[in-house]
Amino acid sequence: MDHPKAVLFDAYGTLFDVYSVGLLAEQLFPGHGQALSVLWRDKQIEYTRLVTTSNDGAHYRPFWELTRAGLRYACKRLGLDLTAEREQQLMNQYRHLSAFPENREVLQALKARRITTGILSNGDPEMLGIAVRSAGLDGLLDHVISVDSVRKYKTHPEAYRLGTQAVGRDARHILFVSCNAWDALAATWYGYRTLWVNRYQLPFEELDTQPTRTGSTLRDVLAFFES
Amino acid sequence: MDHPKAVLFDAYGTLFDVYSVGLLAEQLFPGHGQALSVLWRDKQIEYTRLVTTSNDGAHYRPFWELTRAGLRYACKRLGLDLTAEREQQLMNQYRHLSAFPENREVLQALKARRITTGILSNGDPEMLGIAVRSAGLDGLLDHVISVDSVRKYKTHPEAYRLGTQAVGRDARHILFVSCNAWDALAATWYGYRTLWVNRYQLPFEELDTQPTRTGSTLRDVLAFFES
Repeated sequence: MDHPKAVLFDAYGTLFDVYSVGLLAEQLFPGHGQALSVLWRDKQIEYTRLVTTSNDGAHYRPFWELTRAGLRYACKRLGLDLTAEREQQLMNQYRHLSAFPENREVLQALKARRITTGILSNGDPEMLGIAVRSAGLDGLLDHVISVDSVRKYKTHPEAYRLGTQAVGRDARHILFVSCNAWDALAATWYGYRTLWVNRYQLPFEELDTQPTRTGSTLRDVLAFFES
Repeated sequence: MDHPKAVLFDAYGTLFDVYSVGLLAEQLFPGHGQALSVLWRDKQIEYTRLVTTSNDGAHYRPFWELTRAGLRYACKRLGLDLTAEREQQLMNQYRHLSAFPENREVLQALKARRITTGILSNGDPEMLGIAVRSAGLDGLLDHVISVDSVRKYKTHPEAYRLGTQAVGRDARHILFVSCNAWDALAATWYGYRTLWVNRYQLPFEELDTQPTRTGSTLRDVLAFFES
């Protein structure tokens, strides 16, 4: 098969480490940092699904607000006292998540090969803009696409369609990269070529569909251009 | 406000105890029974959302199959050796989940008041039929409604619409009862009057919508007919 013409990356969990809030969470709530960062993330994603499925997007709210709602739920669930100040600190940390270290070199290698690059993310435009600039990736991305314009989160097909529209290519010519198994699964269903970067040695979803390839770091993107 | 004209119950988690598989799970995988039953349930629900959101139901599979897929994922994730025999045992247990003890008296009290009763469930018709008969509830339910006919799981509005269609009343005249916070939330969004039965002292979802009322057992349904 010919090489992909473009590479689109998921952002949260793929380029940016959503669990990097765990350190601050541990400082604020000793002994609960990891549990909080996991439940926060799970709830944030659950909320994207609830608002997308229900009533044709009538309950859509930007990712930033769902992130805050997920934090509030997670703290209540774990019995942690989320003061206004702590909420502000944690949300501010979420705005400046750590980028995974190999991001830049992979994007640079793609640009050196004149491959179109982009982000296709649940994040709203403001969050994405700050995260991309903080990580110094802004010169390396041709497209920074937020689902906010269609008010439906991945895994809704209208969200994935934004990627093909921006690139101007059929999905089979685009490589979609995600560390989130559900995202790699649904992008495969949509028709993208997919790389699931399995950072945490997890099983893939058990729904009889496999990503095109599975890797362990973003560097595995480059193998799509070598054969 | 006048009394509801009908009461629709969620099934799994509300009438039937999805965590009652934990005992067998603990026998099969000592020390992991609770973790397995929780992750199994979470994954089952996640899969209903993934197949409902993606590609307009093209990836729909009946609840029984998603239940099996969730079990397989959960065992892989927890590093448990799910032999074919163990899978069969656990799935058979799921087919015969324990019913919560107050179910019958609440349904009997509703029928004594000539209130229309029913189930509106993600379960497929065969699963529901067996569960209802096993629990001896079949004479007490006017409707046993499965989302299978629309191939979309709750929280999709087409799933909730099956309830209003079956009863022949507007949602505001129907009380929808669920122990699952996400289900009570989305039913409220749809327009039902709702009772969230909070069996496990959990926080409600943080999405700025509250159920009509919150209770702690199914008996709290009856308070809707007393004032």
